[in-house]
Amino acid sequence: MIEEQKKGTLLVLSGPSGVGKNTLIDMFLNRNKDIRYSISATTRKPRNHEKDNIDYYFLSQEQFCNMIEEEAFLEWAEFCGNYYGTPIKPIEEALADGYDVIMDIEIQGAKQVSEKWPEAVLIFLVPPSLEELARRIKNRKTETSEEIEARLKQALIEMDVGRMYDYYLVHDNTEKTVLELEAIRQAESFKVKRINWDLVISSLKEGLNA
Amino acid sequence: MIEEQKKGTLLVLSGPSGVGKNTLIDMFLNRNKDIRYSISATTRKPRNHEKDNIDYYFLSQEQFCNMIEEEAFLEWAEFCGNYYGTPIKPIEEALADGYDVIMDIEIQGAKQVSEKWPEAVLIFLVPPSLEELARRIKNRKTETSEEIEARLKQALIEMDVGRMYDYYLVHDNTEKTVLELEAIRQAESFKVKRINWDLVISSLKEGLNA
Repeated sequence: MIEEQKKGTLLVLSGPSGVGKNTLIDMFLNRNKDIRYSISATTRKPRNHEKDNIDYYFLSQEQFCNMIEEEAFLEWAEFCGNYYGTPIKPIEEALADGYDVIMDIEIQGAKQVSEKWPEAVLIFLVPPSLEELARRIKNRKTETSEEIEARLKQALIEMDVGRMYDYYLVHDNTEKTVLELEAIRQAESFKVKRINWDLVISSLKEGLNA
Repeated sequence: MIEEQKKGTLLVLSGPSGVGKNTLIDMFLNRNKDIRYSISATTRKPRNHEKDNIDYYFLSQEQFCNMIEEEAFLEWAEFCGNYYGTPIKPIEEALADGYDVIMDIEIQGAKQVSEKWPEAVLIFLVPPSLEELARRIKNRKTETSEEIEARLKQALIEMDVGRMYDYYLVHDNTEKTVLELEAIRQAESFKVKRINWDLVISSLKEGLNA
């Protein structure tokens, strides 16, 4: 009875670049087939193997700007000449159908989401240590040591924004961190503010009179 | 590093009489040896087998009233000529030592606790149905059918207060509900507001300079 009235929860995952958001989300989605992943829209060209409506919604700049005007984005930003944004509609529909939705988003975007959708659950992913973050970035072998140092300084700046989030998780071990993320998801589903308490009471009353 | 700075969480469990708070807490404490149970103080006489400092802190009325004056209770109430209350000190000490504490408390008391200790986590236990609540009360074989009906009406009134709680749990199956309570406990331990974010950042910085 209570389950039927429930809307889904929007889980928003952020964290400094290199912290391993994608790895975590992949395992989380794999273990939880009933959760929806929010697909971003972008005006940049698809890269090899990227598929429209799966990796991104690939839009023309005109389409994107029309959607901005229609306030069809939960958040959007321009980055290096391309637009990126989160369309509201698929998220609203999934939540109304009772599905939980997870999105990963950079820090500025998370702030916009939380303003537009205060019931979103903001989760900040913390590296176990900066040494470990450096090691992960080094393993990619795409950056010089100066670039790595700059990335670490940037990560510290990004860490500061974590204080405005609801939850933090230390990403030291993906298996463990996924279980912790699942506990947050489960606990949030028991929040009184997420259900209509009057309906809970009236469904109990119906039982009494029946 | 982050773990070391953490204070415990105070979990407050309420719900209509007959919903099975004790059964749930017993199994929860059995499975989680690192959690502390908050012992109430009372001026009523010990019943058979009740032990001082285990079942209750048994106090004289004078002792109790002195503690009220010293604001030594998180909450207290008078009921049928006896006083009942929750001493703050053992809870504060356990939380400072990093232990989570659980207390069960009637609804008026929970309101007082949440005013004095806003970071407390308030959990409301809901019966699966009023039929089930009636069945449980009947099984005790201590009440007449008029009394049972009065108890059910009272339960509905008590249910209304649930809307001011943080979480609700439906107590349909104790094994399942204990797992849900554990998820809430775990998720609450990841709340950003429960840690000093500056210390999280500075502990990452120390790693960088080392």
